Amino acid sequence: MASGHPKLQELAKEITDKVFRPAYCNYAVLAHLGNTDGWMKAMLTLCNPGEGVLVGVWTYPSALACMLPHNIKPVLVAMDGEGIRADALRDLLLGWDAEARRMPRPHVMYTIPVGQNPTGATESAARKKDIYDVCVEFDVIIVEDDPYYFLQEGSYRPKESRDSMRRGQLTTAEFVEELVPSYLRFDYQGRVVRLESFSKTLAPGCRLGWFTCNPLFAERLERQAETSTYAPCGFTQALVITTLSKWGLDGYLRWLQGLQNQYIVRRDYLVDCLADEFDLRMGTAPCDVDCFSGCDVYTAYLKPGHSIMTEKQRLTDEPLFSFVPPTSGMYVWLKLHFERHPKHGTMDSNDLELALWKELAEAGVLFGPGQLFAADVAVPYLPTDRISSVVGSATAITTVKEAEDEGHFRISFSDAEFDDLKKAISIFSRVIVNFFRTS
Amino acid sequence: MASGHPKLQELAKEITDKVFRPAYCNYAVLAHLGNTDGWMKAMLTLCNPGEGVLVGVWTYPSALACMLPHNIKPVLVAMDGEGIRADALRDLLLGWDAEARRMPRPHVMYTIPVGQNPTGATESAARKKDIYDVCVEFDVIIVEDDPYYFLQEGSYRPKESRDSMRRGQLTTAEFVEELVPSYLRFDYQGRVVRLESFSKTLAPGCRLGWFTCNPLFAERLERQAETSTYAPCGFTQALVITTLSKWGLDGYLRWLQGLQNQYIVRRDYLVDCLADEFDLRMGTAPCDVDCFSGCDVYTAYLKPGHSIMTEKQRLTDEPLFSFVPPTSGMYVWLKLHFERHPKHGTMDSNDLELALWKELAEAGVLFGPGQLFAADVAVPYLPTDRISSVVGSATAITTVKEAEDEGHFRISFSDAEFDDLKKAISIFSRVIVNFFRTS
Repeated sequence: MASGHPKLQELAKEITDKVFRPAYCNYAVLAHLGNTDGWMKAMLTLCNPGEGVLVGVWTYPSALACMLPHNIKPVLVAMDGEGIRADALRDLLLGWDAEARRMPRPHVMYTIPVGQNPTGATESAARKKDIYDVCVEFDVIIVEDDPYYFLQEGSYRPKESRDSMRRGQLTTAEFVEELVPSYLRFDYQGRVVRLESFSKTLAPGCRLGWFTCNPLFAERLERQAETSTYAPCGFTQALVITTLSKWGLDGYLRWLQGLQNQYIVRRDYLVDCLADEFDLRMGTAPCDVDCFSGCDVYTAYLKPGHSIMTEKQRLTDEPLFSFVPPTSGMYVWLKLHFERHPKHGTMDSNDLELALWKELAEAGVLFGPGQLFAADVAVPYLPTDRISSVVGSATAITTVKEAEDEGHFRISFSDAEFDDLKKAISIFSRVIVNFFRTS
Repeated sequence: MASGHPKLQELAKEITDKVFRPAYCNYAVLAHLGNTDGWMKAMLTLCNPGEGVLVGVWTYPSALACMLPHNIKPVLVAMDGEGIRADALRDLLLGWDAEARRMPRPHVMYTIPVGQNPTGATESAARKKDIYDVCVEFDVIIVEDDPYYFLQEGSYRPKESRDSMRRGQLTTAEFVEELVPSYLRFDYQGRVVRLESFSKTLAPGCRLGWFTCNPLFAERLERQAETSTYAPCGFTQALVITTLSKWGLDGYLRWLQGLQNQYIVRRDYLVDCLADEFDLRMGTAPCDVDCFSGCDVYTAYLKPGHSIMTEKQRLTDEPLFSFVPPTSGMYVWLKLHFERHPKHGTMDSNDLELALWKELAEAGVLFGPGQLFAADVAVPYLPTDRISSVVGSATAITTVKEAEDEGHFRISFSDAEFDDLKKAISIFSRVIVNFFRTS
């Protein structure tokens, strides 16, 4: 069965019922092979060639790369510290000029609402509600790509103000209640396609997840599976079914809670490392067209007493990079302040980003270069004339332009050993200070 | 890695080297998720919307169903007892009128060369060579969907003339030598994409196989996997790698030889059952535009002494159905002689086929209704005006027309217990005789 083993569907439905609680009852669940496969299938089911998909200005590159060969293009929406902005989305759709853009008004939105890849941003319940209302107004289907849902770590607190046993005492009911709601909770019209994955919860590489959506879409998605991947691998299905059946829902939720705690520790550890290596100063992002806006932003400066200080006093007063400690997911998104770099003005920020990325890689540290995740440039084979036609509203264009002075890195804290994380940040400190000093 | 674990690729390459022996050395192998997934990826990589794919008049319906949403249409090529006809293919391409057909000349061919689904036909080495030459002449890429390759059973011989221990004594080298060559053997230009699957050899539902093709195509196929299915499920890869590594190539070939023997026994058993229930008379297919042409055809009549004989003497002299015992694969393809049916002329042959199919299903026997596999009608949502534009050459049109007086069933002998096979054929005998007598 291309829709998954009946028992797997039953288990998926139980989790959906108890955790995601859709606003309507006759929703359908069916298996897919991980969220990248799920998005490919949803996109092919929902879009026609020549159409556009609404995406944040920073997003998962594979989500775009799978669209472009079908002549389905990204339409950029401005983001703030909570991800895609509802007001920017509404402005974009309200002012849509199909002729100027050579594209009908988009009717599909792709979002990673929790621990967004790459920015780490998480859409609050209120934000989701606002976006949902805009999608109702303009008849937009929401594809919720939510692999990091259970990695909701909450706010970062500096080491000294942290009480060590804040979580872990919750009942599973309390654990579920604390999680930000899925779009499904607001979905009274059946316009959400939720992509859920076991890859981040049971085993990476197990390539198994499920769609939750209305039965009409589910029927089409099943037909599509029958003519491509067919059923998910039987061995994985058997392993996952057996594991979840043995654990029961409560056991699975306890497992997820344990996982969440591990990610809290990892997130805290990474930010602590940054605090150890740099002089972190907290503030609020000033700009309302920035993916940090509304958040407490940490900006990193050279530490007083750093060996380099005597050489170049100015570095202690100039920001190297900024970030918002993520409240979910597995990524820290760094904004690199290349406007302070000696070569700023003579070197493009993307080139500076790549130069620093290479130095880091050569020193043994692999970060994700930010330009990979820029929805307008993520795809090198997109002809320039198409880019100009798909870049979003005035707001979005501003956002993209703002970013031109900056570089970005995505740091993943999902699987490195603690010692390696520490070592990586130490190397990063050495390399970036050197980079700003001498490059 | 979307291309599969390096060890899996190594094993796939070893099998390809030793068994399929491509005509060039720098070929690439990479994993896919079973041949349906492989074909979907190959088709999306090789074809653009508005183009056509060359297929036999009877073929695997999912192969077509995955093309149509992308506006990629089947172009029918006549078949004979060896599958797709090289001469019909050449005529079709030579006389291609892009304007009349509203389609550029196709540059991709899809074929199931061994134990074809549904006809059971197997392309000989000579046929493959001829088809390859035509494909060179007209620059056609050949996608060889070959899941039944190792189920080469050889000719059927009636029970009484069979020596029971003909096979099973072969060395693995002899076993490999006896197999009909893959298109790869003739592929001096790198125009073959071979789809190999473990589903029919190690475990159905394991959803694992591999492409063999030139490195240029392989790079594109890998990019496509990265944006859809990503890597095959890690558990399956681990199981298959461990099994094959433990067995070694020789062990795997012995396993395949054992499997082949099982299929020989099953094929023989099914045909024996038909011989028990019906009066089978052997002849040669008279018509050169028929998928039995060139073969020894068995035609089934009511057995002398059948209880019905006294009632309707004529049935013993009138053919009920014909078939060619397959030399490969897991299907027997029956041609139902509805031209002898009392309602012939007042009822469409597809309706007669469906009526008989329903009676059989209600009696507990599930055959595949032939119309599902007709490449011109397999897809109900294909608008009529498109069908007329894609039906193949004059030859192909004739073939399809000829078929209008006939019905077809596909019988699978892959997994039923022997007792069930026997029972099914006994029920079939009762139902078909009754159907021809009274319907």
